[in-house]
Amino acid sequence: MLILTTGGTIDKIYFDATSKYEIGEPTIPHIFKEAGVTVPYQLVSLLQKDSLEMTDEDRALLHKHCSETAESQILITHGTDTICETAEYLQDIPHKTIVLTGALAPARFRETDAIFNIGTALGAVQSKTHGVYVAMSGHIFPAGSVRKNREAQCFEPITPLPLA
Amino acid sequence: MLILTTGGTIDKIYFDATSKYEIGEPTIPHIFKEAGVTVPYQLVSLLQKDSLEMTDEDRALLHKHCSETAESQILITHGTDTICETAEYLQDIPHKTIVLTGALAPARFRETDAIFNIGTALGAVQSKTHGVYVAMSGHIFPAGSVRKNREAQCFEPITPLPLA
Amino acid sequence: MLILTTGGTIDKIYFDATSKYEIGEPTIPHIFKEAGVTVPYQLVSLLQKDSLEMTDEDRALLHKHCSETAESQILITHGTDTICETAEYLQDIPHKTIVLTGALAPARFRETDAIFNIGTALGAVQSKTHGVYVAMSGHIFPAGSVRKNREAQCFEPITPLPLA
Amino acid sequence: MLILTTGGTIDKIYFDATSKYEIGEPTIPHIFKEAGVTVPYQLVSLLQKDSLEMTDEDRALLHKHCSETAESQILITHGTDTICETAEYLQDIPHKTIVLTGALAPARFRETDAIFNIGTALGAVQSKTHGVYVAMSGHIFPAGSVRKNREAQCFEPITPLPLA
Repeated sequence: MLILTTGGTIDKIYFDATSKYEIGEPTIPHIFKEAGVTVPYQLVSLLQKDSLEMTDEDRALLHKHCSETAESQILITHGTDTICETAEYLQDIPHKTIVLTGALAPARFRETDAIFNIGTALGAVQSKTHGVYVAMSGHIFPAGSVRKNREAQCFEPITPLPLA
Repeated sequence: MLILTTGGTIDKIYFDATSKYEIGEPTIPHIFKEAGVTVPYQLVSLLQKDSLEMTDEDRALLHKHCSETAESQILITHGTDTICETAEYLQDIPHKTIVLTGALAPARFRETDAIFNIGTALGAVQSKTHGVYVAMSGHIFPAGSVRKNREAQCFEPITPLPLA
Repeated sequence: MLILTTGGTIDKIYFDATSKYEIGEPTIPHIFKEAGVTVPYQLVSLLQKDSLEMTDEDRALLHKHCSETAESQILITHGTDTICETAEYLQDIPHKTIVLTGALAPARFRETDAIFNIGTALGAVQSKTHGVYVAMSGHIFPAGSVRKNREAQCFEPITPLPLA
Repeated sequence: MLILTTGGTIDKIYFDATSKYEIGEPTIPHIFKEAGVTVPYQLVSLLQKDSLEMTDEDRALLHKHCSETAESQILITHGTDTICETAEYLQDIPHKTIVLTGALAPARFRETDAIFNIGTALGAVQSKTHGVYVAMSGHIFPAGSVRKNREAQCFEPITPLPLA
């Protein structure tokens, strides 16, 4: 399994020295250790960005890594603001199972969705045959069928437009 | 989705009044709330037992519930000592995806595998087509192919016996 | 400062191998590390008992350690069921500040009074001039004036009996 | 007891909607509830500021509140960057015990000094006779004798200058 981290809320930590929150080391190894995960994986910390700052170049880099790896199972952590856009961008990659997830609250918080979401993504990436998915709000959404509802702070299916 | 809880370490709480640890209310609703899960589900608290105390009658009851429900996705929380046996017991149920999970440390602990494991099971139960699985140690093991390694405190594939 | 640990709920951990809760290593060093405590101290793990099992011999041992140490500030962790009795037993030790505390939920729990109570006791033991105190429920009760209310799960002042 | 909150890291929360960390509601009621604190208190949320932004006007407001209250025990939560300066500013208030504390990591974090520090301050404010103190790093420092060591991320006594 290949794990790619790109930044986002999930990896945010707090620096007292500057009173700032910045993206820290990937939190996945800590989460896996606490959960006793024995699945072998390779982790690449590709980017450290808020997802609103992700550029087309960044997405091209991510696409390249997903396409070129020999691994068929890829788990990606990503900021939640543009995770749905990135999922769509990767949608044309064949023969692989790619699951993106993130968090609304940093993994270092006492109350967080990060640990659960990583679990959901790990369960899905090993179970889906092929395709690109977003694992958020407990759902496994196919890429292109999901959006973030910022007011309700959850992810929901895109409602099909009414026919004319 | 149908969620059946049977007890086990995952739901253990501590009663100061008696200085005892007992199986409490199912922890899943709390975990789902914190993780912002919006997947609809029905929860049935079927048993409150340590899994070493599970009887054939208990397993028959569980089998009956899994067989008779109209739901095709079933998530079961179960004590880890006999979770593999129970998974095998349910293996003949057709047309359903059944994922069993549990925890080595109670969900109420600060360090626990419970939240992650529930996440993994939820990801798998929505992604596997049919069959019975045990979601532990980050893996999605097919029923009949997994055992608990008590010394190493993890779950591992059953090694096939060497041919004579 | 001398810290004596005697067991009790505060230090209880869970062993999956036996599905039992037992008294583990003293939790104070972990709590101090997380809180960034730089106060020098010597820790002696004197007993590992539920406080209902504390004998007169155990209390005599504790009394001896408190009396003989050169330290004038002593913090004791103790099971909550008989912490008030032990505080009274130590009340005749002169020239020292002794603060006993414990917890209603183990320190390893996600929700626990252990961390806060150790903090309260550490604040009190460095601030009171002399005497024996029980730090529970946010109060610093003088020994002999406090009891555990098991129904309400808190510590309260002993109400003086009405005069006949 | 009077509790005054002024902001600082201890009360910082994260808003996913803006990907920003801001000062939220005072965390003390949550901490007290979890710890089972039964001490009666009045809480006034006086300011919501990073302590580097505290002005002389802010400190005058704090001074006025401490001077005019009928309560003799006052606990103040404060950002750690200028907590020592504020403590000195309050030093001339007579007949009261004032304890300031804060945190290097927000109370909402899984690993934080906030809960412990509030405990230490609560223990000290009920135990010291009179004066102004800073409760940090497990110590109860008298105002005017302490500074923050930003590199070491702890509070330490001010070393007296060597004589010429």
